[in-house]
Amino acid sequence: MWYQEIGPKQDVVLSTRIRLARNVSGIPFSPKMTAEDANTLWEKAVSASERMGGYLTAQKLSDLSPIARQVLVEDHLLSRELLKKPLSCGLLLSSDKRVSVMVNEEDHLRIQAVVAGFDPAGALDLANRVDDALEEALPFAFDPEWGYLTACPTNMGTGLRVSIMVHLPGLTRMRQMQQLTQSLTKIGLTVRGIYGEGTEASGAIYQISNQITLGVTEAEILEKVTSAMNQVIKLEHTATRELKEQYEETLSDSVYRAFGILRYARKLSSEEFMKLYSEVRFGMNLGILPIEDTPELRALWVTVQPAHLMQEQELSPDARDHARAQAVRTVLEVL
Amino acid sequence: MWYQEIGPKQDVVLSTRIRLARNVSGIPFSPKMTAEDANTLWEKAVSASERMGGYLTAQKLSDLSPIARQVLVEDHLLSRELLKKPLSCGLLLSSDKRVSVMVNEEDHLRIQAVVAGFDPAGALDLANRVDDALEEALPFAFDPEWGYLTACPTNMGTGLRVSIMVHLPGLTRMRQMQQLTQSLTKIGLTVRGIYGEGTEASGAIYQISNQITLGVTEAEILEKVTSAMNQVIKLEHTATRELKEQYEETLSDSVYRAFGILRYARKLSSEEFMKLYSEVRFGMNLGILPIEDTPELRALWVTVQPAHLMQEQELSPDARDHARAQAVRTVLEVL
Repeated sequence: MWYQEIGPKQDVVLSTRIRLARNVSGIPFSPKMTAEDANTLWEKAVSASERMGGYLTAQKLSDLSPIARQVLVEDHLLSRELLKKPLSCGLLLSSDKRVSVMVNEEDHLRIQAVVAGFDPAGALDLANRVDDALEEALPFAFDPEWGYLTACPTNMGTGLRVSIMVHLPGLTRMRQMQQLTQSLTKIGLTVRGIYGEGTEASGAIYQISNQITLGVTEAEILEKVTSAMNQVIKLEHTATRELKEQYEETLSDSVYRAFGILRYARKLSSEEFMKLYSEVRFGMNLGILPIEDTPELRALWVTVQPAHLMQEQELSPDARDHARAQAVRTVLEVL
Repeated sequence: MWYQEIGPKQDVVLSTRIRLARNVSGIPFSPKMTAEDANTLWEKAVSASERMGGYLTAQKLSDLSPIARQVLVEDHLLSRELLKKPLSCGLLLSSDKRVSVMVNEEDHLRIQAVVAGFDPAGALDLANRVDDALEEALPFAFDPEWGYLTACPTNMGTGLRVSIMVHLPGLTRMRQMQQLTQSLTKIGLTVRGIYGEGTEASGAIYQISNQITLGVTEAEILEKVTSAMNQVIKLEHTATRELKEQYEETLSDSVYRAFGILRYARKLSSEEFMKLYSEVRFGMNLGILPIEDTPELRALWVTVQPAHLMQEQELSPDARDHARAQAVRTVLEVL
């Protein structure tokens, strides 16, 4: 899984995600679709994906248990919107879970690729390969002047969205996030919480993505996001350095307390976990907390989400808080 | 030191302290004393104590540094009142620090003995030995009808005060302390905070003592305190059992978090330390926290008090909070 791996600029950038919005000519767009249209779309998409020789596995949403669906949402492979779809829909998923295609979300196809760290070109390359393979089998709705046609005009043109998941404890603590958000908005980027539109930033984790897909080339979008991200990384490093210089003792106390609570607590809510985990990673990156980063530690912010904890059995919220604390202890005890 | 030792009923009772108030005939009582009277008293007291063959060492207050004085206060060997005395005064102290005589406090002599756990007879025995030895050399102010005469009438008669230092986290958490205090007051006992009259209960530590010294015998005082304490211990055990039965998971979480913070924090105020330390000892006594009690752990609530931390060098309040956290870590890391 991408969240266990290490990528470029991993201290600030958790992941780079590319999304391509595509629609199939001859099938009505999502808002006007019948049940029959949805079945046709699903079958065509699955059949097209089979051309990639088993690279993608089809998972129809209706075949998945509620917990399994939620696990995919927490893995950032499935959108919350797709869960609400009454018609045929589902996922085409690569075995390494780096590439997925949501079928019949807002658009017919949403091709996604996610890699660890900051690597838009790498992620785009993965997405393009699937895009090309599917396009050979399916006639995509494309206009020479407007580019790819999409259900919502904001996605038209390239249909490309680059989303960068970042951890910005320095800027958050220095209360510079509002200002940063405003600056990024001005140049056409949006800043959102951890699970996309309308969700809160939890544990100083944010998603930064391009808002405009039309009238610009893929290369221009990548260039804009890259130059903005280099700036964000620089700002985070500056904020962190200042914090360390001015408040090292307070910071050190706060980081070690977070580690102490995570290491011993018997109950942890999701919200408290994110706060403490963010603090521990911050301390680790600052060199204050002498622990080693491991795949298990890196993955923790996803693996202790509610559905991940319930893969073996349904749990009450209280039992989940216990299971979360236990899972965290298991990872931290070996460090 | 008594606070490193283990005594009877140590899970609830930290220490038993006996105090005998005595005054010397022919020297004016404290409120009417001149500087010359004070010098005479000090010399007579020191000379009388020498009859005990080096058991007691004289420490004149004016010869002690402010930090050394404060350390004695934190050790419960010197009262805060004595610190304010403008005239000659000081301490006669046994090498094991179980017996001390404050010279020229509210009364001419305040003989004190303190032992670990609940042992009023043992403590009284220690105090009586010093009382007898001093009385051989000094004519104590004594009236056949009123008993020992004291500066304040509330101490007249036996001049005996029994003070039991107790740790009552169960009753405190169950919010039963107010009711208990009222019940004890009705039978002539008082409940106070950790450093005597007018101080707050910190970390669920309280001092329970007899209010009346007149018109009763020493045996009656001891009997009353003993029967009340047996009741208090029983109530604390009941409260603890109920808490454990009803809230074991919450309790366990809270105890482990306290342990985690104490084990890793880089800054600890005295107040926060007492709260967390109380929690850790509670968890240990309940069998929730599988750590072993050691003399260093038992003594911690005294040894991390401000003056104890400053025995080697003066520290700012902030530096003290760091030194306290460090001292706590040193003790907890070996557990």
